[in-house]
Amino acid sequence: MFLETVRSEGLAHLSYLIGDKGKMVVIDPRFDCEIYVDIAYRHNSRITHIFETHCNEDYVIGSTRLAKRTGANIYHGRHTSFKYGDSVSEGDTFELGNILLSILETPGHTYESISIVLADKNFSKEPVAVFTGDTLFIGNTGRIDFFPDQIENCAVLLYDSIFKKLLPLGDHVILYPAHGGGSICGINIASREFSTLGYERKYNPILQMNRDEFIKHKAHEHHYKPPYFSSMWKHNLEGAPSLKNLQEPAPINIDKFAMAINNGMIVLDVRSLEAFASAYIPGSIAIPLEIIPIFAGWFLPYDKPIGLVIDQYEQAEKAARYLIRLGYDNICGYLEHGMYEWGASGHTCDKIPAVYTGEILRRLNMKNTFTLLDVRCKEEFEKGHLPNAINIYVGELPDYLDKIPKDQLITCFCTTGKRAIIAASILKRNGFQKVEDWLGSITACAALGYPVVSR
Amino acid sequence: MFLETVRSEGLAHLSYLIGDKGKMVVIDPRFDCEIYVDIAYRHNSRITHIFETHCNEDYVIGSTRLAKRTGANIYHGRHTSFKYGDSVSEGDTFELGNILLSILETPGHTYESISIVLADKNFSKEPVAVFTGDTLFIGNTGRIDFFPDQIENCAVLLYDSIFKKLLPLGDHVILYPAHGGGSICGINIASREFSTLGYERKYNPILQMNRDEFIKHKAHEHHYKPPYFSSMWKHNLEGAPSLKNLQEPAPINIDKFAMAINNGMIVLDVRSLEAFASAYIPGSIAIPLEIIPIFAGWFLPYDKPIGLVIDQYEQAEKAARYLIRLGYDNICGYLEHGMYEWGASGHTCDKIPAVYTGEILRRLNMKNTFTLLDVRCKEEFEKGHLPNAINIYVGELPDYLDKIPKDQLITCFCTTGKRAIIAASILKRNGFQKVEDWLGSITACAALGYPVVSR
Amino acid sequence: MFLETVRSEGLAHLSYLIGDKGKMVVIDPRFDCEIYVDIAYRHNSRITHIFETHCNEDYVIGSTRLAKRTGANIYHGRHTSFKYGDSVSEGDTFELGNILLSILETPGHTYESISIVLADKNFSKEPVAVFTGDTLFIGNTGRIDFFPDQIENCAVLLYDSIFKKLLPLGDHVILYPAHGGGSICGINIASREFSTLGYERKYNPILQMNRDEFIKHKAHEHHYKPPYFSSMWKHNLEGAPSLKNLQEPAPINIDKFAMAINNGMIVLDVRSLEAFASAYIPGSIAIPLEIIPIFAGWFLPYDKPIGLVIDQYEQAEKAARYLIRLGYDNICGYLEHGMYEWGASGHTCDKIPAVYTGEILRRLNMKNTFTLLDVRCKEEFEKGHLPNAINIYVGELPDYLDKIPKDQLITCFCTTGKRAIIAASILKRNGFQKVEDWLGSITACAALGYPVVSR
Amino acid sequence: MFLETVRSEGLAHLSYLIGDKGKMVVIDPRFDCEIYVDIAYRHNSRITHIFETHCNEDYVIGSTRLAKRTGANIYHGRHTSFKYGDSVSEGDTFELGNILLSILETPGHTYESISIVLADKNFSKEPVAVFTGDTLFIGNTGRIDFFPDQIENCAVLLYDSIFKKLLPLGDHVILYPAHGGGSICGINIASREFSTLGYERKYNPILQMNRDEFIKHKAHEHHYKPPYFSSMWKHNLEGAPSLKNLQEPAPINIDKFAMAINNGMIVLDVRSLEAFASAYIPGSIAIPLEIIPIFAGWFLPYDKPIGLVIDQYEQAEKAARYLIRLGYDNICGYLEHGMYEWGASGHTCDKIPAVYTGEILRRLNMKNTFTLLDVRCKEEFEKGHLPNAINIYVGELPDYLDKIPKDQLITCFCTTGKRAIIAASILKRNGFQKVEDWLGSITACAALGYPVVSR
Repeated sequence: MFLETVRSEGLAHLSYLIGDKGKMVVIDPRFDCEIYVDIAYRHNSRITHIFETHCNEDYVIGSTRLAKRTGANIYHGRHTSFKYGDSVSEGDTFELGNILLSILETPGHTYESISIVLADKNFSKEPVAVFTGDTLFIGNTGRIDFFPDQIENCAVLLYDSIFKKLLPLGDHVILYPAHGGGSICGINIASREFSTLGYERKYNPILQMNRDEFIKHKAHEHHYKPPYFSSMWKHNLEGAPSLKNLQEPAPINIDKFAMAINNGMIVLDVRSLEAFASAYIPGSIAIPLEIIPIFAGWFLPYDKPIGLVIDQYEQAEKAARYLIRLGYDNICGYLEHGMYEWGASGHTCDKIPAVYTGEILRRLNMKNTFTLLDVRCKEEFEKGHLPNAINIYVGELPDYLDKIPKDQLITCFCTTGKRAIIAASILKRNGFQKVEDWLGSITACAALGYPVVSR
Repeated sequence: MFLETVRSEGLAHLSYLIGDKGKMVVIDPRFDCEIYVDIAYRHNSRITHIFETHCNEDYVIGSTRLAKRTGANIYHGRHTSFKYGDSVSEGDTFELGNILLSILETPGHTYESISIVLADKNFSKEPVAVFTGDTLFIGNTGRIDFFPDQIENCAVLLYDSIFKKLLPLGDHVILYPAHGGGSICGINIASREFSTLGYERKYNPILQMNRDEFIKHKAHEHHYKPPYFSSMWKHNLEGAPSLKNLQEPAPINIDKFAMAINNGMIVLDVRSLEAFASAYIPGSIAIPLEIIPIFAGWFLPYDKPIGLVIDQYEQAEKAARYLIRLGYDNICGYLEHGMYEWGASGHTCDKIPAVYTGEILRRLNMKNTFTLLDVRCKEEFEKGHLPNAINIYVGELPDYLDKIPKDQLITCFCTTGKRAIIAASILKRNGFQKVEDWLGSITACAALGYPVVSR
Repeated sequence: MFLETVRSEGLAHLSYLIGDKGKMVVIDPRFDCEIYVDIAYRHNSRITHIFETHCNEDYVIGSTRLAKRTGANIYHGRHTSFKYGDSVSEGDTFELGNILLSILETPGHTYESISIVLADKNFSKEPVAVFTGDTLFIGNTGRIDFFPDQIENCAVLLYDSIFKKLLPLGDHVILYPAHGGGSICGINIASREFSTLGYERKYNPILQMNRDEFIKHKAHEHHYKPPYFSSMWKHNLEGAPSLKNLQEPAPINIDKFAMAINNGMIVLDVRSLEAFASAYIPGSIAIPLEIIPIFAGWFLPYDKPIGLVIDQYEQAEKAARYLIRLGYDNICGYLEHGMYEWGASGHTCDKIPAVYTGEILRRLNMKNTFTLLDVRCKEEFEKGHLPNAINIYVGELPDYLDKIPKDQLITCFCTTGKRAIIAASILKRNGFQKVEDWLGSITACAALGYPVVSR
Repeated sequence: MFLETVRSEGLAHLSYLIGDKGKMVVIDPRFDCEIYVDIAYRHNSRITHIFETHCNEDYVIGSTRLAKRTGANIYHGRHTSFKYGDSVSEGDTFELGNILLSILETPGHTYESISIVLADKNFSKEPVAVFTGDTLFIGNTGRIDFFPDQIENCAVLLYDSIFKKLLPLGDHVILYPAHGGGSICGINIASREFSTLGYERKYNPILQMNRDEFIKHKAHEHHYKPPYFSSMWKHNLEGAPSLKNLQEPAPINIDKFAMAINNGMIVLDVRSLEAFASAYIPGSIAIPLEIIPIFAGWFLPYDKPIGLVIDQYEQAEKAARYLIRLGYDNICGYLEHGMYEWGASGHTCDKIPAVYTGEILRRLNMKNTFTLLDVRCKEEFEKGHLPNAINIYVGELPDYLDKIPKDQLITCFCTTGKRAIIAASILKRNGFQKVEDWLGSITACAALGYPVVSR
């Protein structure tokens, strides 16, 4: 019996393969699903079952593509109307070799959420592990804000799913959730990827609350909801989005790239934040490569062509992979020869200066006039921030531009400067002239011992 | 906090890396230890601590090589005299980032055996996982027969280590042992590689016994002890065997290969068992590539050169890797151009015919005279065997040649025919003329419904 | 300016990429054309032009797939009616960076054959290299037997193409042909892959003949024509065969595999020839993996499903790749768990014994009665053969079965035994009972000093 | 017969493997010589001969390491006293399979230089190709300035080697030199890597000169001579530099890195030039990764530890590989977590602003006062430069610091900005305050139509 975890970085998405005696199950496959076929192939196994723990809102599920490729059946919970696959109910069981899987209905995060209990018949029909989807994470639980008028109800459902269905499986049961640390489907998920129901029962802070506290806490939890979520939800209900397959983007020569910009192409610049201190194409949206999975869905449209700016060829393939997982198949290529030739060809460049901590402190001490724009999320801000900073979450920045003084120098910052460079590029696109990115950001500030206040 | 398992196939050896905030621990590194450096590198981490759960008898530990490469410190239990590294005692703790490790002394398998308890300080100082070495496996426990005159004492120690130290850590604690299914360091280890102390407490058959039963059972357990174990033990106490590094073996041309055979070189033929039905070099020892880690130590000397016969170049590198892990650095190369050219050059070949199940059944029905030699281990034989078969374990075959009739056809078999081909080649080396390998072996027989008896 | 050769083994097909300043040309792309896109990508280049030196008969050209992927234009000679791409004429030129390409019409192998002359404008507009397709090879020329009633005319055309168009380009011009040693598009092509027009003019044996000798020689040259050639020709004229894309074949379980055989599936066994000495599925066609590109087209139908028997998973992918290049997209999968489990499950096996040279010599000396069937091609046979062997080329064996005595032992042989195992499997499929494969074949015989006669 | 070229980027070094029938020759192996063993392995061949065309001055030869690994013999010319290997003389021949190699003594670049002539005995004993080392390149010849008092003599020798020995081999002979475009061992070497003696005879500009012109031209050619050349020469005469093997550098934590700087460690920052516009460690030497092979030998000492600053882990391995080829084995590691954490930890940063072309033009039009420092080589400068720029070659910058005004803004530029960032970092290390790097440099300027003057 083997079990393998497939991680999708950025999304912090965890999918699983479980196999025995030549048959294999995949739980929550991602869109670029070739990896599951490869793993099955290496294990001389056929993928026969695909389970979806719930209808995902943060990425395009790969079930229908994987099913088409392998002939496997797709299964999901019965309390939502999917246009594909089969519904399962509490207590349904599936056997493959010595694997015994059984279904628990665990609503809360969504109504159709299920958990999948795993037993090893060689030893016992009792559970050894459980796949909990977005119901229970390590160190936290799933969010429950997708049906704003039913939040309290969802909190109740979630509490009961965890306390009446999952925890009773036993302390010894290993926990395999659908997301790890960094996911936007939960808050404060642990960076550690291994735990048990018993460990969570004892040490997961949310599970230390009583029923009322739990419901109140979850009902009032603050979450951001990127606009692309609704597209994902639609894709994942219909099951077979007519997305083009993942392909290596091709180079676009400078003249065509410039012309495409004039015709409305969005420029997505995935280079390191330092690169912006040197030169970038005016109007670009900056999203450092590794955080595309988290932030692209806030800023990129589905209906316009996207042109990439990269500084290493591998970045093009990776950016395309990250974007297709969010349903973007409108990438028309990348700028051939990169910013070097763009600059060399005489096209206009802009820059977003980087500033480091010493300079910020000097200005603060000099009582210079400038705006400190903290683009971290509300929770991070409340834990500790600079006394004179204003806070607008990077994802929501386009909605609050009027809160930012237009004629001052604006110093964007976050934890390290990555989200800040997104914010800075958004400000620039919206006509702000003097914008800079603070390298090191709040982390550096803390290291220097500068006073940080909390709410 | 990340945790990664490194598997060494054949040995079914599991080593672990645990890291946080740029520092990393390795538990029980293997000889070809480059893989740990690579993983650390990818995680932008330095290896600072190496733990050995005990002095290993089945493979050469890589601690001193890895320490030399990385500057890490080596730690092991204090009840054996190692010539390198530092001793640790019950309760010693180590912190790296949020990782908190603490030592449990868990003797039984050996006297110096330790277990390493892992906590995640982000959540609690209480344990989340434990690395148990060869003390507790999934589905079984370590063997205790290395000090034949002290077996009962070791059984007592092992019982107390498991019941008084490990299990009290709590049902919710995840179990990371040093071996998986197929290891010769235990019997009936589960093929599943994930479990918890709670699951083992409930479903590990050995742990269902009471203290007396347990001690009696372990004290009478039957284990094979390959002759190479003593070399491993010596290597691992001294810590720095002057083994040559792993290298790709070079081709040896046919004439030199033939001459080397005359001068005493041992020929190790790692090809598929079907290949022997066609042609092999007389006198070769057959060990199919993937079971070298288990069987080479029974048959290969350390003091003679070894020449390989392969049919794919990758096999040479893999064979060398498997052999160096067992302390063999005396491989002088592989036969250039393989058996094709050996045959083509006019050198003598021999063959070991393959026979399949239908033919065996026909012979049995005809009451033909031939010897059915079952080379599986005693436990397998006792569970179910052909009524008229004799059983000699493949590893011990050289010691029991006189039990086998010399003038009859001898049909070697096991579960699939792989161990049988080793046996057949050993018989041939010892002058037996009519030897064949049963393709499919007992598995096929069972599939055909032929009556199989048990003890 | 860079030039890279892409080799397709077995077919001995050579395709080329030439690029400068971000643009790239591909000459004679193969079907699985991802490799060209990857190379272009690594060179930060776009493929803008695809040239076909002629309409190929031995593999499916990848032009239309590559054009679809990259947007490149396709060009070929004007004397055949292609259903896609653009025609070029003598003297047409193309410039990309400092690359200057010009077209020579060089008919003979086919009527529309062109050669592509390369100059480096940095130094001169005079040629530095020429891509000759199947017109001129290293050590030989293309074959001219595709229009049987026009052979003499083709020979004249070929002579003039070589002597009036190619050689006059100058001794210093480097030669890049479309095939290397081993191709079935020519005889005795050199194994060396680098040459110049001057070297060929001086040392290519065919070019040492005068016009009449050349025409007579080429007109009487003997070539085999596998039945799949006509399918290739048709594919390559139409340009867009609706072939499925290359995919990793999936495992098929034993029961389904057996059932599919009953329903007419062809079994293609690609394992080593030694494996057949042990066991194979009755009725299989044996083609060792590496010679699939040369021999599959003689034996496999396009309209029946094909099931593979392999002994390593990588072989499935490779076999599928080799087969799609020949237009076979009817592979339904491979036998799960291979011959081990087939045997173990009790299904019937057959075997083709291997015999080695000593045994053959013994029989010859004993004047035993058996048939020596030499399946090499006519030219090889005439150069040297065993006095009492009969010669039927492996490809044509199905047409000459009546020439082979049915009740005798038949010893198939060739140069090493690989083509012989194909022949042996074909004989077995056709009811011959006693068939064996001579390991080492004629090569071994020569090594032993056994008398070999020539015509 | 196979031939494979191994390229070492940056050095533009070309080494070759030629093999037939299981034996292989390597010509001019590089230090990190595992690649030759791998290629031999894939071809099932043994490396039996290693040739050095001459004693190299620009990289550490790998002969003795490769010989130790493979048992091959080393051969080189007899007119220099090597401390290892065997000497060969004009006319010596070597046979491997159908390969026939013969030695031509071709002094000029150095006294012991040899060329190696290749024939394919299958076709003729006359040559098909020649390996010319640094005697004849594609589009140029080797430099002859290593013995400053004997330049005229060397020019005579080189002329005679080319015109009396190489060219007489015949126009049809393929040319395989030891360097391609970009090497510092010659000027204006073609970017095209394929040519023949005939093509060079006709179109190599240097070979169009008569004897006197040639000698005069070569005797007056201008070359730069980096200080590391003398170390290379010494290494390569002695043959077995006690260099440590290539290893992946390990991370060094920020505190230790800072302390090492205080103790004299040289910081080599290999990041993209844009990164410097954001932040770098004061005092670092900037050398963009891909040009380390060309410029490290100008600036780095052999006797001080070197610490790397990278922004991707792969860069550390690549930098170490490039440096060991130049004899630097004094790399102690790379800055853990890169500049992010350096900045975040509050350590001081500096920056080198990037400027783009529009700004430069604006300043020029405004007649602003600033220094345009062109760090390209003399020949590039003379071909075309900005009217008011001063020219100091980047390698020689440390010797001419007094020619640069200390109190003005200094705009470093070259062709693209890469050499300029080296220059800028050297200026900063030497106390210049206002230094910037012109992104796009002269290339951009040309594109904008700004007037460029030539000598």
